[in-house]
Amino acid sequence: MKKIINHPDHIVKDTIEGFVKAYNDRIEKLEGSQVVVSKDRKDDCVSVIIGNGSGHEPACIGFVGKNMLAANAYGGIFAAPSPDTLYDAIEATHTEKGVCVLISNHAGDVINSKMAMDMAQDDDMVCKGVILYDDIASAPKGEEVERRGTAGTLFNYKITSSYAAEGHSLDDVLVMAEKVRDNTRTLTVATVPGTSPITGYKMFEIADDEIEIGMGVHGEAAAHNMKIDTAEAIAKVMCAKLIEDKPYVSGDEVAVLVNGCGQTTYMELLIFYKEVEKLLAEAGIKAYKPAIGNFITTQEMGGIALAFCKVDEEMKKQWSKETNAPGFKL
Amino acid sequence: MKKIINHPDHIVKDTIEGFVKAYNDRIEKLEGSQVVVSKDRKDDCVSVIIGNGSGHEPACIGFVGKNMLAANAYGGIFAAPSPDTLYDAIEATHTEKGVCVLISNHAGDVINSKMAMDMAQDDDMVCKGVILYDDIASAPKGEEVERRGTAGTLFNYKITSSYAAEGHSLDDVLVMAEKVRDNTRTLTVATVPGTSPITGYKMFEIADDEIEIGMGVHGEAAAHNMKIDTAEAIAKVMCAKLIEDKPYVSGDEVAVLVNGCGQTTYMELLIFYKEVEKLLAEAGIKAYKPAIGNFITTQEMGGIALAFCKVDEEMKKQWSKETNAPGFKL
Repeated sequence: MKKIINHPDHIVKDTIEGFVKAYNDRIEKLEGSQVVVSKDRKDDCVSVIIGNGSGHEPACIGFVGKNMLAANAYGGIFAAPSPDTLYDAIEATHTEKGVCVLISNHAGDVINSKMAMDMAQDDDMVCKGVILYDDIASAPKGEEVERRGTAGTLFNYKITSSYAAEGHSLDDVLVMAEKVRDNTRTLTVATVPGTSPITGYKMFEIADDEIEIGMGVHGEAAAHNMKIDTAEAIAKVMCAKLIEDKPYVSGDEVAVLVNGCGQTTYMELLIFYKEVEKLLAEAGIKAYKPAIGNFITTQEMGGIALAFCKVDEEMKKQWSKETNAPGFKL
Repeated sequence: MKKIINHPDHIVKDTIEGFVKAYNDRIEKLEGSQVVVSKDRKDDCVSVIIGNGSGHEPACIGFVGKNMLAANAYGGIFAAPSPDTLYDAIEATHTEKGVCVLISNHAGDVINSKMAMDMAQDDDMVCKGVILYDDIASAPKGEEVERRGTAGTLFNYKITSSYAAEGHSLDDVLVMAEKVRDNTRTLTVATVPGTSPITGYKMFEIADDEIEIGMGVHGEAAAHNMKIDTAEAIAKVMCAKLIEDKPYVSGDEVAVLVNGCGQTTYMELLIFYKEVEKLLAEAGIKAYKPAIGNFITTQEMGGIALAFCKVDEEMKKQWSKETNAPGFKL
């Protein structure tokens, strides 16, 4: 395995140590727990937090900061954090207004987050959760709640957290989280598998001349494969599916995420964005401030996750507000 | 070739079209020329610009913005922009205070930049150039001027440009550019080759169990290879060479760049940074605000460029000043 690491058993610990050393002007790690917290979190606002497996960096440690997450509870590589770890994140960031726990829809994350919230509520903390699902390839229309949480959850990390930092009530923050989720759709194309940093094995296989449409963030089975084609042709397939699913309609304005899955170059992301913007324009849909880069990765996997979030003025304001989170930039 | 592009002949055009569409709130392209300019450039300040080959994105289009470059003249894939293109960049950003042309030390960039400056001076524009060299693997100590420009040139794009935006004279800006260069050293380790987006061929070969220390940004021959080893061992070799070359000494403070060459994960960059910070501390050298991420890439090449720049209070101020350049974030 050609990864620049020390020992597979220490990957997560070493990653976090590097992260906290690099960004100790704005980030700190909880002593004795796998939680990083923002030094800029506000005592008089709802704290928005999330737990997730490691191996997707910068997600989600990189989204902790001003106008973004108050904390991130991180697990092992591709493994949800324990209920205790999530509890620690809730406890560390709890305010009188409460804590909003965002939960990306994967079995371990959902179960452990719910247990942690139960424990916190038993200890008289105010906290509520919102399950995020956005991947249209993982369950058909009408069964949205069965869908996986994938790259489009980023809209929630930014918009809902920024909104919470204005001092809104927990109920209002939860409404915003659901609104962002319900306006978000994501679809991922994979070109090249990533390598597990623990086993050194490829995470899945793709034929040399094929790409997979609908891959999950851990290499979960794709909806279908197609022959490798131009950026224009790939964007056409993906935009059509996303626009049809929501549906997004003429007159809508959408924030766009062109998320590199790992080894896909910024050059390719920009070429792909050009095609996406054109297709949206043809459908009468306006693209708003795209996020283009590696945000939620699957190691060095090749591919792009494309996500749209229909936005109104309030959501636009929160999406574009400045942040010092190390992993986010518009 | 599994790249998400349209046609190899249109890569650069498509990339720039996507870039300008994505960031038209702050970037514009010169009509009829391969130049992108910052909408935030100041009429009463020296403009700092650079020309470079494409294929290294976000370098250098992504470094155009407030407190960074006033313009970037871009060439074809791994090919210097023409003198005419560089002239256009000088002309578009020229102010009464003049233009500072940063030149990364590669034959084409140097020749074409000098021709462009001659043309601009003939047309009564004030412009002067500074050749940047930082790669300690490409020429021995004492022959610094023969060294290639590699990832460490990023320190100049940020610090010198930020300084220029305060209104200093061209002479002062040139002094700063030379100061930043003379305090910078870079060394690159390559693990996996990148693929030329034009030919579809791997750009070089590395044995499965080896890594190359001293690779250039276009896959230029490395100083030596070693067996793949731990992040700690690799950092030790690289830090020792960098520290010895300058030399950096106990009491120094250095801005650090841990630059991903393409497919290396943020996880690995953070693990590597942890080791670098420790080694610097052991040498009595303090790390200042590291830049960790993909800044100057060689397609999907695996590897890390490590660069140090010894900084004083003035340089620290300019390094950390906010910017809206899409490709830069601390």
